[in-house]
Amino acid sequence: MREPAEGTSTDDGRKPEAIGSMNIGVIGATGVVGHEMLTILDERGVDSDRVHCIASSRSAGLTLPYGKDHLTVGTLEDTVFEDLDVALFAAGPDTARTWAGQAVSMGCVVIDNSSAFRDDPDIPLVIPEINGNLLDGFKSPGIVASPNCSTTIAMMAVAPIHRLAGIRSMSVTTYQSVSGAGAEAMEELEQQIRQHAAGEPITNRVLPSRALLNVFNHESSIDADGFNEEERKIRFESRRILDAPEIAISATCVRVGVPRAHAMAIELVLEKGVKVEEVRELLDGSDGIRVVDDRELKRFPEPRHAAGQDDIEIGRLRLHPDRADGTGLLLFAAGDQLRKGAALNTIQILERLQNA
Amino acid sequence: MREPAEGTSTDDGRKPEAIGSMNIGVIGATGVVGHEMLTILDERGVDSDRVHCIASSRSAGLTLPYGKDHLTVGTLEDTVFEDLDVALFAAGPDTARTWAGQAVSMGCVVIDNSSAFRDDPDIPLVIPEINGNLLDGFKSPGIVASPNCSTTIAMMAVAPIHRLAGIRSMSVTTYQSVSGAGAEAMEELEQQIRQHAAGEPITNRVLPSRALLNVFNHESSIDADGFNEEERKIRFESRRILDAPEIAISATCVRVGVPRAHAMAIELVLEKGVKVEEVRELLDGSDGIRVVDDRELKRFPEPRHAAGQDDIEIGRLRLHPDRADGTGLLLFAAGDQLRKGAALNTIQILERLQNA
Repeated sequence: MREPAEGTSTDDGRKPEAIGSMNIGVIGATGVVGHEMLTILDERGVDSDRVHCIASSRSAGLTLPYGKDHLTVGTLEDTVFEDLDVALFAAGPDTARTWAGQAVSMGCVVIDNSSAFRDDPDIPLVIPEINGNLLDGFKSPGIVASPNCSTTIAMMAVAPIHRLAGIRSMSVTTYQSVSGAGAEAMEELEQQIRQHAAGEPITNRVLPSRALLNVFNHESSIDADGFNEEERKIRFESRRILDAPEIAISATCVRVGVPRAHAMAIELVLEKGVKVEEVRELLDGSDGIRVVDDRELKRFPEPRHAAGQDDIEIGRLRLHPDRADGTGLLLFAAGDQLRKGAALNTIQILERLQNA
Repeated sequence: MREPAEGTSTDDGRKPEAIGSMNIGVIGATGVVGHEMLTILDERGVDSDRVHCIASSRSAGLTLPYGKDHLTVGTLEDTVFEDLDVALFAAGPDTARTWAGQAVSMGCVVIDNSSAFRDDPDIPLVIPEINGNLLDGFKSPGIVASPNCSTTIAMMAVAPIHRLAGIRSMSVTTYQSVSGAGAEAMEELEQQIRQHAAGEPITNRVLPSRALLNVFNHESSIDADGFNEEERKIRFESRRILDAPEIAISATCVRVGVPRAHAMAIELVLEKGVKVEEVRELLDGSDGIRVVDDRELKRFPEPRHAAGQDDIEIGRLRLHPDRADGTGLLLFAAGDQLRKGAALNTIQILERLQNA
């Protein structure tokens, strides 16, 4: 388990000061993931004159807080890439598809947080703790993709187990925060609390149903087989990150009334039987994970604890009672959707590139 | 699907006026399940002079609303059973163990909503739509047990599928409302909303963590294998209700910030491949179920819709993408914890007994 005090070291232990020498653009800086990227860059000690906030023309001219400074938002246009070494994309897939090529052609490394390039076999899809080695031969300039938030949290929990015992099948059932739908969805949840406290009807406009006092299936588009896009991403991206297309994967993705940390129940069928204690020790020794599994005091992962933390909380480790050979494993995980689920992983990719 | 207008008919279509001719005691009448039993008895048209509210001496003398009347709460003591034909137990397992035998010895039919007798092979564990036939040879006086709330909701969804295609394994992941922890837990959630709206810290006293803006693993006691009691109940009771001890069952039980309806994701492995359309039609024609599965409009089961309804909502029916033979089925269900999950099922058992 990595202690918070070591939170700024890369996974090989070297300090990532290197990123402070680059000109870093945050594309989509006014969004909730962009905001988190700025927070992390400041935590990393990157100078404000190295950081460039970029957004659509609608937001141009706005100022955003950065440490003790304020940064002015520039418009996303060809010329912005001239001054950049790195472009961190915190916008949607359409923006990434439109602008990433341009950024690369002007010499930028692009790290994209959207789904635009995750299924491109020529572009690495990376969680540094798991498959950071894919970046060793990275040819700059170029594009690296950061995975979907739920996928990243699930993978942090299961990748060490996959290396230990081989995953045959994985079922993921999520309790997803509203932050994945952006700042407006987070504000909507707060507004619903105010409405209910005032005895007014609860309304929703940003999300398709209300998150307060309710849960509802994920709002992304549903395919002919009935799976929503979030569920498809978990299946496709997990197989790609684990480099194991043979794993059977199903997911059910659900929103709950939680602001910014996702939780999920995961059930695995393994190739090889395991013992709970062995898995607990393995996870406890893995980067970016905090084992929270105290059966005595009933302390397990909770979104309210995972929020704002870099580590993914994992607990409720137990063996399926009907698989006597120890090949059935259940667990529960919680992780900050905006940090490891998005902005933190993107910046860790950058740090890994600098240290590759 | 049973329409709400028919909600007072038994599952064989006969009107249950018969229960109006009995003297019915509600043991634990001041609790949230007891309250729901009174509501349903009143909805069924049972005269107030037939209904006896019973609770611990602490609550004796209180009056409880019943339709347009008020009923005075009597103390739970030997003599109360003298005047009763039926004792509906809406109290905990300790109360049931202490008093059910006494009630039977004084000629009462006991229908117990607690876990006290669910593992007694001599006592039927009944969901009328599924195994109401167990009551056909019922020897009165005696005890009938009503299952755990999550189990009941899960069974309503999967029992028809089990009859169709045989269940080999079932994984249940719950989004449980706070009502299962009683009226105080429901009030605590409301209080947390008021606290947060007022900018105060959110506190919890009834439940071990806070339900607002959070989810946490079910608070029941955890065994040596790491499963909580709610998860053990789902496994044991489901096998008993389906009369299928060979089914592999795992569960993860989690509380969410929802007042009174449970939701759950269920993944099944079946003996025989199915088609989604076939399952949808089967469920649509089953008593006590409402299929809510509109992929176009993204209308699926939600606790806010299931709350206060008799029917269990079922939707998100889809086949596991990695089981080409159609033996993997996923679904999502929501049902009122206090109605079908507790009080309604208890009264439906009574109606079934009357019509047996």
